[in-house]
Amino acid sequence: MTSVDEYAKVDLQIVEQLKTIVGEQYVFVDEESLSRYAHDETENLHFPPEVVVKPRTTEEISAIMKLCNEKLIPVTPRGAGTGLAGAALADKGGVLLSTERLNSILNIDERNHQVTTEPGVITEVLMEEVKKLGLFYPPDPSSRGSCFIGGNISANSGGPKAVKYGVVRDYVLNLEVVLPNGEVIWTGANVLKYSTGYNLTHLIVGSEGTLGVVTKIVLRLIPLPKYDLLMLVPFKNLEQAGEAVSEIFRAGFVPSGLELVEIDALQIVSKMVDSSAVPLTDDTAAHLIIEVDGNDMDVLMKDMEAIGELLTKYDIGELYFADDAQQKAELWKLRRRVAEAVKMVGYTIEEDTVVPRAELPALIKGVKALGKEYDFNVVCYGHAGDGNLHIRIHKEGTPNSYGDAEMAKCLRAMFALVHGLGGTISGEHGVGLIQKGYMDIVMKEANLKLMREIKRAFDPNNILNPGKIFDL
Amino acid sequence: MTSVDEYAKVDLQIVEQLKTIVGEQYVFVDEESLSRYAHDETENLHFPPEVVVKPRTTEEISAIMKLCNEKLIPVTPRGAGTGLAGAALADKGGVLLSTERLNSILNIDERNHQVTTEPGVITEVLMEEVKKLGLFYPPDPSSRGSCFIGGNISANSGGPKAVKYGVVRDYVLNLEVVLPNGEVIWTGANVLKYSTGYNLTHLIVGSEGTLGVVTKIVLRLIPLPKYDLLMLVPFKNLEQAGEAVSEIFRAGFVPSGLELVEIDALQIVSKMVDSSAVPLTDDTAAHLIIEVDGNDMDVLMKDMEAIGELLTKYDIGELYFADDAQQKAELWKLRRRVAEAVKMVGYTIEEDTVVPRAELPALIKGVKALGKEYDFNVVCYGHAGDGNLHIRIHKEGTPNSYGDAEMAKCLRAMFALVHGLGGTISGEHGVGLIQKGYMDIVMKEANLKLMREIKRAFDPNNILNPGKIFDL
Repeated sequence: MTSVDEYAKVDLQIVEQLKTIVGEQYVFVDEESLSRYAHDETENLHFPPEVVVKPRTTEEISAIMKLCNEKLIPVTPRGAGTGLAGAALADKGGVLLSTERLNSILNIDERNHQVTTEPGVITEVLMEEVKKLGLFYPPDPSSRGSCFIGGNISANSGGPKAVKYGVVRDYVLNLEVVLPNGEVIWTGANVLKYSTGYNLTHLIVGSEGTLGVVTKIVLRLIPLPKYDLLMLVPFKNLEQAGEAVSEIFRAGFVPSGLELVEIDALQIVSKMVDSSAVPLTDDTAAHLIIEVDGNDMDVLMKDMEAIGELLTKYDIGELYFADDAQQKAELWKLRRRVAEAVKMVGYTIEEDTVVPRAELPALIKGVKALGKEYDFNVVCYGHAGDGNLHIRIHKEGTPNSYGDAEMAKCLRAMFALVHGLGGTISGEHGVGLIQKGYMDIVMKEANLKLMREIKRAFDPNNILNPGKIFDL
Repeated sequence: MTSVDEYAKVDLQIVEQLKTIVGEQYVFVDEESLSRYAHDETENLHFPPEVVVKPRTTEEISAIMKLCNEKLIPVTPRGAGTGLAGAALADKGGVLLSTERLNSILNIDERNHQVTTEPGVITEVLMEEVKKLGLFYPPDPSSRGSCFIGGNISANSGGPKAVKYGVVRDYVLNLEVVLPNGEVIWTGANVLKYSTGYNLTHLIVGSEGTLGVVTKIVLRLIPLPKYDLLMLVPFKNLEQAGEAVSEIFRAGFVPSGLELVEIDALQIVSKMVDSSAVPLTDDTAAHLIIEVDGNDMDVLMKDMEAIGELLTKYDIGELYFADDAQQKAELWKLRRRVAEAVKMVGYTIEEDTVVPRAELPALIKGVKALGKEYDFNVVCYGHAGDGNLHIRIHKEGTPNSYGDAEMAKCLRAMFALVHGLGGTISGEHGVGLIQKGYMDIVMKEANLKLMREIKRAFDPNNILNPGKIFDL
């Protein structure tokens, strides 16, 4: 059991062997290809692999892993490259293993409300396919139109529906996984309840491609709710908006979406889109976007009315109801565009903090205060119902990249605040390359030691996505 | 990293040291005490420990673990002793660590819908306490009136509500755990979304006390549904009852309970209780018990009516509605008493199989056929909505214990059938001592190897509940 820092290089012989395994046309060493796979959606990261390989089958992936394990070549598995933590980047060189050709939905089992899929299927494609049969796969990250379901499993993604329906982990029943030594296992069974030994399935979910390459995925599905309603509530006081979030749950409602966007983010996005439909008065401090869904429209109307009534005790502006499908889509689009907009105006680092729901106002307040103290600008938005707040920051006079010492100071202060509120570093993006230097803030060395030992159990040669989450 | 089979004995010096740690009155070596902790609810198991210790605090448990780890003494953590797989039995002697004095609910956080509790709290007590505040903790195993919440976590318990609300794992946010070397960690954070390194929390859940001793538990809660309705449907054909189960979900309903009891079990239980309320005609093949819950009575009535209407296409008897709280309680009591009744008439071994929901008819049919082939009697009942079927068997002329070779042959045949249907050995009871000989049927050696390595990562001296789930 060794920690290997000295990896072998990908030489011509290895390239030939890879071509034998997957076919000549699916092995790439040209600069353009390497460069295309050198980044994901994380800021300022660029790590070209030595070779890009695009296998089609489990057997091919098994053969690749056997080869690389034997030759001590690092392998970085990668989905659509939409990650926000650098987890799919080949920062140690070696083989970039793209799952883009494992892109078939293998079986939709209507009788059991399950779908078996390959990892390279786009999340939205999967959602739409099962929807045709009246079934629902809820976890939909902002990038759902481009991200892969395999990547979602790697990061344990969430999205706006998680507040009612849970995250990816809550839908994964069973996984086919190629282990670093090339052996292929199923982690569990296609069942709703499982108490048969250690939970390998949910250990793989969220492990960011460090324990095995997921090649088949069995997801549970639920009946598609027939109706939904969407409401926007402008708050004049940010803290009250935060309080209202937990108040809604305490009154017994479970919205299918409960998003918060604070004024700094609203102002930025309102300048970038031509949407007169969105109310933004001078005294707005934050918007809550509230969605309810279900099978009975009368109940939804009644619920939404009751929620509206509940909120009148706060200092709010005029409620805005999205009346039809188009208005709803526009409102959601606006919400989804927030991250994009703030990024374009120069807020360069996005964090993915999560705290207990009711601590959200304290988190936002605290982060703003830290911004003043450490001299950085900050905008907040996110899945308020889950306590999952995305924070984009920008610090003048720094390169605004994760390795920067000044920026690191800000981030450490921010994560210490998050930890103090009972929260943690990442709710749905993962740790990858960019957060691993901060893990000591939220957990003991003993936790990291256990994780390292688990990594060694799966990957004694440390060849699969090495150096992500932690260093061995 | 060694596999220790030669453990040290608990001598007088160790007993003295234990007394120093927890106080003299909480260390027991008298035969009566040892005998009381020698069994759980599994048939025919009797393993007295060398000493019973009843600590009160995390610190005391940490000190016990340090001592035993150093001296190589096996430690068996134990909750209420209601387990059905022998996981809390000290079959290697050593220290029996009872969590019964860690019995406080530490904090009900209404703002965040969370409860922090010690492991020795009775599940029903916890449910009732949070209910007073309008909150709901759904997982309620049949033994909820006596089992501990810590034991539920150890086994990843389910219960009848799991079909709508999920199992214990779906409610555990964070755990304080004493590791085998005495170190204390929190496994995660008190948050609804977590993507910050490997998921240690859900690795501990279902690990049957082999990886650490859980000393504090943070559970998420949900708003308590205001109403429920309960209906009993007699089926004249067992396979149709099974089909109806998946039909209900396919029509878009998600009942909060969906239980199946087949005729052999019904006949036994009807002889034992004086319940004329339960319809049992000559042509009954099975009962489905269907519960719906929610916040709007009109919707529930409509849903239940629609489900009833849906079922008229099958060959069913007269629907029976439980009209008031008392009738509901009686019906559930009857369901809960099934296991007890069949046990009393001599069905001695209970299995906890689980298959994809729609395979339930095939499972029941297959098990009955195997009963004829291998000459054992069998009754079935369980959480049909989850595909989780409890099967009690009895074989004439054998001691009807798990070690018996004839019985083992029956069980292997049954588990092979379960595996063939896409299912597995245990849905909610765990593997413990009694199922570990059958793990090879449902998983590869590679899976077991990973589990063993994980065990070694947590417990290199193999002193914590050794030999449960698998042998090292």
